[in-house]
Amino acid sequence: MAAQLRVGILGATGTVGQRLVAMLEGHPQLVVTAVAASDRSQGKTFGEACTWRLPGDMPSALRGLQVGSPQPPLDCDIVLSSLPADIAGPVEAQFAAAGYPVISNSSSHRMDDDVPLLIPEVNAGHLAMIARRPGRGGGFIVTNPNCSTIMIALALAPLQARFGVEAVVVTTMQAISGAGYPGVASLDITDNVVPYIASEEEKIERETLKILGRLDGARVRPAEFPLSAQCHRVPVVDGHMAAIRVQLGRKAEPGELRDAFTSFRGVPQELGLRTAPPCPILVRDEPDRPQPRLDRDAGGGMSITVGRIARDRVLSHRFVALSHNTIRGAAGAAILNAELLLARGYLRNDQ
Amino acid sequence: MAAQLRVGILGATGTVGQRLVAMLEGHPQLVVTAVAASDRSQGKTFGEACTWRLPGDMPSALRGLQVGSPQPPLDCDIVLSSLPADIAGPVEAQFAAAGYPVISNSSSHRMDDDVPLLIPEVNAGHLAMIARRPGRGGGFIVTNPNCSTIMIALALAPLQARFGVEAVVVTTMQAISGAGYPGVASLDITDNVVPYIASEEEKIERETLKILGRLDGARVRPAEFPLSAQCHRVPVVDGHMAAIRVQLGRKAEPGELRDAFTSFRGVPQELGLRTAPPCPILVRDEPDRPQPRLDRDAGGGMSITVGRIARDRVLSHRFVALSHNTIRGAAGAAILNAELLLARGYLRNDQ
Amino acid sequence: MAAQLRVGILGATGTVGQRLVAMLEGHPQLVVTAVAASDRSQGKTFGEACTWRLPGDMPSALRGLQVGSPQPPLDCDIVLSSLPADIAGPVEAQFAAAGYPVISNSSSHRMDDDVPLLIPEVNAGHLAMIARRPGRGGGFIVTNPNCSTIMIALALAPLQARFGVEAVVVTTMQAISGAGYPGVASLDITDNVVPYIASEEEKIERETLKILGRLDGARVRPAEFPLSAQCHRVPVVDGHMAAIRVQLGRKAEPGELRDAFTSFRGVPQELGLRTAPPCPILVRDEPDRPQPRLDRDAGGGMSITVGRIARDRVLSHRFVALSHNTIRGAAGAAILNAELLLARGYLRNDQ
Amino acid sequence: MAAQLRVGILGATGTVGQRLVAMLEGHPQLVVTAVAASDRSQGKTFGEACTWRLPGDMPSALRGLQVGSPQPPLDCDIVLSSLPADIAGPVEAQFAAAGYPVISNSSSHRMDDDVPLLIPEVNAGHLAMIARRPGRGGGFIVTNPNCSTIMIALALAPLQARFGVEAVVVTTMQAISGAGYPGVASLDITDNVVPYIASEEEKIERETLKILGRLDGARVRPAEFPLSAQCHRVPVVDGHMAAIRVQLGRKAEPGELRDAFTSFRGVPQELGLRTAPPCPILVRDEPDRPQPRLDRDAGGGMSITVGRIARDRVLSHRFVALSHNTIRGAAGAAILNAELLLARGYLRNDQ
Repeated sequence: MAAQLRVGILGATGTVGQRLVAMLEGHPQLVVTAVAASDRSQGKTFGEACTWRLPGDMPSALRGLQVGSPQPPLDCDIVLSSLPADIAGPVEAQFAAAGYPVISNSSSHRMDDDVPLLIPEVNAGHLAMIARRPGRGGGFIVTNPNCSTIMIALALAPLQARFGVEAVVVTTMQAISGAGYPGVASLDITDNVVPYIASEEEKIERETLKILGRLDGARVRPAEFPLSAQCHRVPVVDGHMAAIRVQLGRKAEPGELRDAFTSFRGVPQELGLRTAPPCPILVRDEPDRPQPRLDRDAGGGMSITVGRIARDRVLSHRFVALSHNTIRGAAGAAILNAELLLARGYLRNDQ
Repeated sequence: MAAQLRVGILGATGTVGQRLVAMLEGHPQLVVTAVAASDRSQGKTFGEACTWRLPGDMPSALRGLQVGSPQPPLDCDIVLSSLPADIAGPVEAQFAAAGYPVISNSSSHRMDDDVPLLIPEVNAGHLAMIARRPGRGGGFIVTNPNCSTIMIALALAPLQARFGVEAVVVTTMQAISGAGYPGVASLDITDNVVPYIASEEEKIERETLKILGRLDGARVRPAEFPLSAQCHRVPVVDGHMAAIRVQLGRKAEPGELRDAFTSFRGVPQELGLRTAPPCPILVRDEPDRPQPRLDRDAGGGMSITVGRIARDRVLSHRFVALSHNTIRGAAGAAILNAELLLARGYLRNDQ
Repeated sequence: MAAQLRVGILGATGTVGQRLVAMLEGHPQLVVTAVAASDRSQGKTFGEACTWRLPGDMPSALRGLQVGSPQPPLDCDIVLSSLPADIAGPVEAQFAAAGYPVISNSSSHRMDDDVPLLIPEVNAGHLAMIARRPGRGGGFIVTNPNCSTIMIALALAPLQARFGVEAVVVTTMQAISGAGYPGVASLDITDNVVPYIASEEEKIERETLKILGRLDGARVRPAEFPLSAQCHRVPVVDGHMAAIRVQLGRKAEPGELRDAFTSFRGVPQELGLRTAPPCPILVRDEPDRPQPRLDRDAGGGMSITVGRIARDRVLSHRFVALSHNTIRGAAGAAILNAELLLARGYLRNDQ
Repeated sequence: MAAQLRVGILGATGTVGQRLVAMLEGHPQLVVTAVAASDRSQGKTFGEACTWRLPGDMPSALRGLQVGSPQPPLDCDIVLSSLPADIAGPVEAQFAAAGYPVISNSSSHRMDDDVPLLIPEVNAGHLAMIARRPGRGGGFIVTNPNCSTIMIALALAPLQARFGVEAVVVTTMQAISGAGYPGVASLDITDNVVPYIASEEEKIERETLKILGRLDGARVRPAEFPLSAQCHRVPVVDGHMAAIRVQLGRKAEPGELRDAFTSFRGVPQELGLRTAPPCPILVRDEPDRPQPRLDRDAGGGMSITVGRIARDRVLSHRFVALSHNTIRGAAGAAILNAELLLARGYLRNDQ
């Protein structure tokens, strides 16, 4: 049996950081050996520094870990980053320059030319973009998309493959956990909807096209269809929902979309990656599904759920998608990326 | 001073019925003289039959009114109906046949050829559709649109007038009060979004085109642009929100849309109708408005609020609209219709 | 290996019925062979009749089961009942008379002299109350308490044992799932608290004393301390909370209460019953715990969580308790009762 | 007609500050002439500095006011303070020392020997405690109680007067607006209850006894009954609820308590103070009232509502009380205090 890869988590005390910690408990290939945070928690143990906000208890093995500062060296083979966007950029670059593979949930490097913006089921081939930075062992950065983008791109992938996609109109209703902690003030969202999430619409419009883009050598040429996103925060704990209209490249019965969704599989399913769900896209046929509270945990939070597939009067078709924003949309996405990199030989535990 | 018109309310114990009762308290031209309900409340006094679910107290003048059955004769000059759709159709027809002007919030007759689907600021001219039914005094039916439709049609009206409208994509996030009482089960909507409201998408698609249609003699020719609606229930007490994309008929700066919205006035404003807000459409320039909790009561609940006006990547423009669904979207709409009919001579208190 | 006991579920389509079905999936000793419901679902399959409202999917093995009417005979060895209180009384008596052991979550027979009101950790000895009714195999009824009562009695049990209890003041904040489906209207509970749950205060006051009473032959003499309960519905999906003051029979440091809670074990823990949590009462020392969303699933939903243990200025001590109301407070309680009955020889699969 | 008294608001951009500003709009005796805040808003106009979070718009007259720093001199006759507790203490003392009457909603000076903790209906006589500090015009400090305390003390006052009070057990369910902005994180309170509000239980226990204490010369001797408070945050926007048990000094029918509540009037009602509600305590007889959403705005937010009056099994009686926490519990309390001081000659506009 191969030794476990030692993981350092940047931003470990945050909402996504805690999910990373929780999902890595008992992972056969990955073990958390270092935690770092940007705030005043440095110097404390993780047990002292981190107010655990997920149901259940913090993994006891991590209680005694010292919280380090987010800069190399860190006692680990790879780095998983969920740092706030305002500091992630230089910190992640610093780790990559110091030879660490960096698997990031932050937005800073997503659009970099040599950084894959990865959804393993959708664009595993984009790993070819990785340019190992000079230095110890050849560090690099791999990112996962924004929490809403993952769901949208995952839903569009089989449609693009089978029918072609010519235009997309997305309206999101996003959970409060997407804003981290303390995140959204309760006075702003109780009995309310907020039709604004900073930079979210731009991220969705930009990232989706990169993910669905075509590899041209070691560079990606973004997909070229127009995409419109309007984003809203709703009083839901976990689970982003998107009402999606799509103009397909050819005529299609709604049943054909349904079939494209349910039959969709990707590299993680072929490889049997641990965090990969058997079906990346589940379809529910009840008229009132998907719903965040009922469907967010499908496939261990790693499947998205699609419903209400129908023709549309303006674009050609429409449907509703739902995804667990801190699992498939963040922590699980990063871990699945790590598993893909491991399976593909990009990570070694002797780095 | 003219004597008050005596009003009978059908469905008086329901969510919209209670709003009607509350809004008519102290009305100088309209006075409630009869209440009727379809359920087991008949025979009781209104005070006994009606569990008051609005803040504050039931108007004391109505406490002692006997709840009648919803069929003529009723001790009133006109009838305001907020009956459930399943019984409104024949009951309202019966009242009209018996000579009562019927002003209805129910969906049953909205698409009838001789029934105006009225938003006084938008299509006051559609009153020409009214065909007085034979019989005592010449009864007829006038309807107000579905709660979401009112907001959408009101927002589109100035755009249609100034730029032309070629396509509309609407995604709604609707309040629980829109479903009446008991309406939505709390287990269905707490920490949740439900992407389905029965018949709502069809109503929006159909009714909007009738309202924005052109009068051709005594008939309406519906507007012909394609309109797509996806509807969602969100955990908000009052206030429907709509994310709207629109393809305009000509190029326009976002500022021109803003101006079209804020300068919009209609017949109710010209006539100074009591329930008409000074500005039917308010625009907020903060990046995160409108919001249901903060904006639903604007203009006494009779103004809609628009924000986030911008260009769109798929259609030409987009914005977000917000309206109080049981005031502008239901009870206030019916009362404004009554006030318009009164001003235009369609109602007399000696019928 | 012993054959599985065949279980019939009365009220299988309801909120608690669905929990029963979900918790029994894969149970080594119990297998659902019959489902019955009082409503219009009879004659349909369970898959058709039951709108599944728990996260995930209905157990596929039950989809094809025909929904029967709630009356004997039913194709099962024992009956688990979660019928509405208004019909449970005679139906359960009828099943017991027909020889079925009936394990009920309904309130109808809880106060009967020959019916144990059972929390296996607290009063397993009350099984001696069971009077087998004449007839086929000797049917009988065993009940579990009201969802709030279970938590309160479980929390009080170790205090009564170690210190004596002289008075109890309880204020509950209860989840909406406690009212079943459709249960609480969303208009009643969104942005709101309702200080009333029908009959709940009386149930808590009455049932707690029976559970903590002493067996005197085959009868229970209720505990005699005064108990006051005020009950409130709050906008929480699952998880009942109780703020509890208690007058203990002797002086005690808060740490002694803590120790009494954490060291508490009962018969289910001794016997290693499958649904029994290792620790029936967990204590959290953070100043702001327990919380419904974070603690309701502790111990698989079968542990209650206590926190904020302190001296009180009016009674002697106070603390806050939290329990999953449809698991420990209903479905799990019934299943644990079944497991205890099985372990103690009250159930046989050849009845 | 007397000139208006010129008011400076400390902490004007906060939750309570905004309520003060909103309630003072159009006040005949008080006019806001200065706003100050402790944070980065100094130097900006109020319109720029303050993100308005109440429904409707910021009073336009204040938009252009420069936000000053919270230290004397300030262009006003009196100061209303809603500063955060951590800075209110020295700032308010400084203003009083500089000769300003300070009317404070902050907790810093509430327990000072020469500072009345005032509810005008309850202890107007405590104004005798005021010791004018030396200096310009004789500044002093008057405080209003904690938002929960006001409701509790107001409810207890008529009981104390008529029956005597021997012990009180209070369990609160408090709205999120009580924590200011951003205050409670939405992740902490959505689908949740938090059984902890820092220092709240101590404040209630301490302040209530001072308010209900007896004046002994210029000092107050606190009431001496034991009082126990357990406090919880619930997902409600506005409106604190308290479940209260009370041991009265003599036997009393529940109807006698009801009568004591409804007939209660105080000095503000006698004097006809502008912000005083006609009835400080309303009683609702429905079994499920009061409720925050339905009753918080009673009496313009200045009446508290009591319901569910009954005998109790441990103490002698129980009931539920409800109050608007940012109106009667904060901003309205401070304004009513100002009106009382004005009526009693403690404030002059030529200071």
